[in-house]
Amino acid sequence: MAAPIGFWFDFTSPYGYVAAELVDAIAARHGRAVRWHPILLGPIFKAVGTAPLTQIPIKGDYSRHDFARTARYHKVAFRLPEKFPVGSQVAARSFYLIDDIDPARAVDFAKRIYRAYFAQGRDISDPAVVMEAATAAGADVPALTEGLKGEAVKERLKSEVENAMKIGVFGSPHFLVDGEPFWGVDRLPLLEEWLRTGGW
Amino acid sequence: MAAPIGFWFDFTSPYGYVAAELVDAIAARHGRAVRWHPILLGPIFKAVGTAPLTQIPIKGDYSRHDFARTARYHKVAFRLPEKFPVGSQVAARSFYLIDDIDPARAVDFAKRIYRAYFAQGRDISDPAVVMEAATAAGADVPALTEGLKGEAVKERLKSEVENAMKIGVFGSPHFLVDGEPFWGVDRLPLLEEWLRTGGW
Repeated sequence: MAAPIGFWFDFTSPYGYVAAELVDAIAARHGRAVRWHPILLGPIFKAVGTAPLTQIPIKGDYSRHDFARTARYHKVAFRLPEKFPVGSQVAARSFYLIDDIDPARAVDFAKRIYRAYFAQGRDISDPAVVMEAATAAGADVPALTEGLKGEAVKERLKSEVENAMKIGVFGSPHFLVDGEPFWGVDRLPLLEEWLRTGGW
Repeated sequence: MAAPIGFWFDFTSPYGYVAAELVDAIAARHGRAVRWHPILLGPIFKAVGTAPLTQIPIKGDYSRHDFARTARYHKVAFRLPEKFPVGSQVAARSFYLIDDIDPARAVDFAKRIYRAYFAQGRDISDPAVVMEAATAAGADVPALTEGLKGEAVKERLKSEVENAMKIGVFGSPHFLVDGEPFWGVDRLPLLEEWLRTGGW
């Protein structure tokens, strides 16, 4: 089987959310798996010298409009949460703790976190909301709660963010197909064309 | 006939160039005209708090790779000019002087400027290169040379940039279809879907 598609995203990224709803079907059509990497855009935006889209003059208004339009286009339920953005480190760390035991369950958890935030307007910076998603995904919540107290998972997330920057991730979603980078949910058609043709 | 598609671009924008090669065919398929508006991204980037893509850390490397990949995908000749970006005000002002007399000729001129810069690597900040394109497009070069000396065309370009900012243009290419904004050459498929369906 060909190498998995790398998928980097922040749990507070609207375009990352839409991509998360689409990427598995695209990968499946081409016999690929997807390797999910939740990261934190905060330190990355600092390195790039940018800010969350909604905070950028002029571009912010367009982005708010485009989030909703993009979601409607792909028939994905969406509303911009009242609290936006929020800290996503508890959700991201939980992902890696679940992922170490069962990657498929971690993907299910990731989709539940995204829907809780962008479809249901829940505050995913609240550990209780994260644990609800973990429970629904069938994760071992007591073990997860314990794991979140340790230093190891903090280091794990930090090294994921550092690695993302090393390979050139500067936004969410970011994909890597056989070394070829694609940034943005609007590049998924090109990514699929790349999978189909092997590149151009 | 339905309202023309508004098309805002900077002559030094690689994605604007690719869009300029594609937009007429899209518009024609839906019985629309295109209203071309060359602008200067400099003052707009200042308001938005950003910089030319190639100067942004991490994102710059991706962009250079993506310019060429996007052009290849659309079968548009492209190489990033050695001098990039350059001042595009002489080209933009010349566009409006030609446009006042003959809009179709101005569009021909605009395409020649873009190809001179991004296909042939000519320096379009050089007035001689601009006049070559004007000549090839059949413009009245002595009148153009005279017009460029006046204040009126400077004010005209300034007001085009101010108007662009007022309607929410923050990058190039930017399109407006019946009040609906689309930013980026990668949004042309969505723009066409909007033309086809009337929106969603």
